[in-house]
Amino acid sequence: MSTASDTNRLETFADGVFAIAITLLVIEIHSPDHDQIAQLGGLSHALVQLWPSYVGYVVSFVVIGIMWANHHNIFRYIGRANHVLVMLNLGLLFFVAFLPFPTAILAEYLPSPENRTTATVFYGSNLVFTALFFNVMWRYATTGRRLIRADADQQGIDGVTKEYRFGPVLYAAAALIALVNVWVSLAIHAGLAALYAVPSKSRP
Amino acid sequence: MSTASDTNRLETFADGVFAIAITLLVIEIHSPDHDQIAQLGGLSHALVQLWPSYVGYVVSFVVIGIMWANHHNIFRYIGRANHVLVMLNLGLLFFVAFLPFPTAILAEYLPSPENRTTATVFYGSNLVFTALFFNVMWRYATTGRRLIRADADQQGIDGVTKEYRFGPVLYAAAALIALVNVWVSLAIHAGLAALYAVPSKSRP
Amino acid sequence: MSTASDTNRLETFADGVFAIAITLLVIEIHSPDHDQIAQLGGLSHALVQLWPSYVGYVVSFVVIGIMWANHHNIFRYIGRANHVLVMLNLGLLFFVAFLPFPTAILAEYLPSPENRTTATVFYGSNLVFTALFFNVMWRYATTGRRLIRADADQQGIDGVTKEYRFGPVLYAAAALIALVNVWVSLAIHAGLAALYAVPSKSRP
Amino acid sequence: MSTASDTNRLETFADGVFAIAITLLVIEIHSPDHDQIAQLGGLSHALVQLWPSYVGYVVSFVVIGIMWANHHNIFRYIGRANHVLVMLNLGLLFFVAFLPFPTAILAEYLPSPENRTTATVFYGSNLVFTALFFNVMWRYATTGRRLIRADADQQGIDGVTKEYRFGPVLYAAAALIALVNVWVSLAIHAGLAALYAVPSKSRP
Repeated sequence: MSTASDTNRLETFADGVFAIAITLLVIEIHSPDHDQIAQLGGLSHALVQLWPSYVGYVVSFVVIGIMWANHHNIFRYIGRANHVLVMLNLGLLFFVAFLPFPTAILAEYLPSPENRTTATVFYGSNLVFTALFFNVMWRYATTGRRLIRADADQQGIDGVTKEYRFGPVLYAAAALIALVNVWVSLAIHAGLAALYAVPSKSRP
Repeated sequence: MSTASDTNRLETFADGVFAIAITLLVIEIHSPDHDQIAQLGGLSHALVQLWPSYVGYVVSFVVIGIMWANHHNIFRYIGRANHVLVMLNLGLLFFVAFLPFPTAILAEYLPSPENRTTATVFYGSNLVFTALFFNVMWRYATTGRRLIRADADQQGIDGVTKEYRFGPVLYAAAALIALVNVWVSLAIHAGLAALYAVPSKSRP
Repeated sequence: MSTASDTNRLETFADGVFAIAITLLVIEIHSPDHDQIAQLGGLSHALVQLWPSYVGYVVSFVVIGIMWANHHNIFRYIGRANHVLVMLNLGLLFFVAFLPFPTAILAEYLPSPENRTTATVFYGSNLVFTALFFNVMWRYATTGRRLIRADADQQGIDGVTKEYRFGPVLYAAAALIALVNVWVSLAIHAGLAALYAVPSKSRP
Repeated sequence: MSTASDTNRLETFADGVFAIAITLLVIEIHSPDHDQIAQLGGLSHALVQLWPSYVGYVVSFVVIGIMWANHHNIFRYIGRANHVLVMLNLGLLFFVAFLPFPTAILAEYLPSPENRTTATVFYGSNLVFTALFFNVMWRYATTGRRLIRADADQQGIDGVTKEYRFGPVLYAAAALIALVNVWVSLAIHAGLAALYAVPSKSRP
């Protein structure tokens, strides 16, 4: 038995948390009740009125989905787990599992002019922490190829490192821009996710 | 390390989302409260009155179950994952994870003559998107056998392709028929699922 | 590629549904609110008053836990999955995933003398269906050793078959006894589960 | 087929329960409503007022995360599962899956001077049971190396045994200290978790 175990259970557990967090987003979308429908003139109008909940669902689904894909991608390189990696991974999952709450706040208060700034900054701040933990975890695993598979290609590793470097700064900027304009802030979150959806050398 | 990873984690994550979405359906069935029971003359009457929730649970359980079985079936052929497949799979899961919401809407408004059409069209539209993503994902993986296992039998692949071809059109038809009659629309959804339950050459 | 796939994904998906159903039970236990606590003279009294919720949690946790252990046990013998097995397994999971609802009904109406019989019969009926699906699935897989591992010992298989044979009848009896006395019915459910907790030849 | 199966499914199921319990914690944090916000003078004040919910989330996330890491660690040594181990593992998961409820109670009544003692003792008692089950499970598996991998190092095993020995007593002490001062009790819970976060010989 080696001192470092393989990454199977860490990945299974993380997959579980990602899958649950992404699927829990939907229970924050509440059915309109019969009074609201009568007042708004029909179910179709009421379903349209739920647009802030859909925005929350879409943004957070994309954000968590991309985080899962990132996690999946970096564990193509990381071959072994030790206690520190397990702890850093828990730190990351702390903010992933928390995300349905800021999402609910965002969906609830996006239509409210006096509260939408707070809601968007709160939402964005959470993403800064996920970006930070991704970076720290990746740096820890790759420094001196500490937990890297023997056959992992160094160029690919350097590509990921380069890509991640600006993540926390970009997310912090997106969060702060919400103080000026929440829509620009949300557009940046969507844009950062869209950027990731494009294949690159480090995610073939 | 090859440029395309295997499909293990993609399948684990998808299994998680399918399993959670299918199990969350039950939390949309709300216990009748003590006032309702007093009014309806006992718990047994109140449990019978919940029939629209049971319809929603049954239809959506069958629909998600069949989708999982389909996903399971096509990954018997798909042997490798790349970034595009991961993204298409996330697109599919977006609509799978959303399904508990249209199900709740359906259960809530099926008994309401003026709202049931909207509820059923809304429900059916979601299924059109899942059928579309299944097709796109499958076409992407099979074109030139891009991500197909070396030992996968081409006849089986062609069988799946043929079967999937009419999926989006059939689901769109079922959704639109709800404009005329919601019960026929729901019967078609049930029928399409039942059809799938029969074994065939492409799902031995 | 053989015509029957292995059972990995079927087991992963089932594990997911069992794990979620068993963990969702807790969200049916509702915190007492501040008014109730003031009225009952403190939080400790209010927590004691929640005993029917605890009964529901304990019984259903044990029931689902035992079902998972059973599922786990029979898939030590079943080595291959085909389309029919996938469908039967979905049928079983239909009733497993539904269980949190009858549990909530039981917890809500166990203290109500006029409704507790209905609640307990409703609860027990659900278990009859799970027992039926376990039997049908097991018979299908073992008839002519259709989906059984080559190295699986026939005596162990026969032991499971014998044990399962009376399951549906016993659960039906337990459900019907609730018409006479709900506490005896619940005790039988607990007893059947406890019986299973004892190791035997067919579950070493 | 050996009489004891491997531990794969037991670990998958446990990972599922841990992942769901840890992710469900967030749904106990309720959005402040519009009235509260108007009264408190803005969303940011309302978000600050939710501090007891954050304390609950943080403490329980850390506690469940550490329990998962412990489970992960001891199954590096345990190589086989038998019926008794499956049952003991279910006993452990019983208290893990229950934890979101005492967490909700803690978050709700931590700000209430007359109820916070009860809430903290209730919370701590649950942890005593998890510590007990961890001990019993570990003792059962390691006695005479009953279910231990052939290549597992005895020194590592003895290290875990030594570490676990005082777990139940320490948790019981932390729970009882809440009768005197709840903040000291919560600090001990946090401290016991933090202690575990440090790598040691038995968790490399």
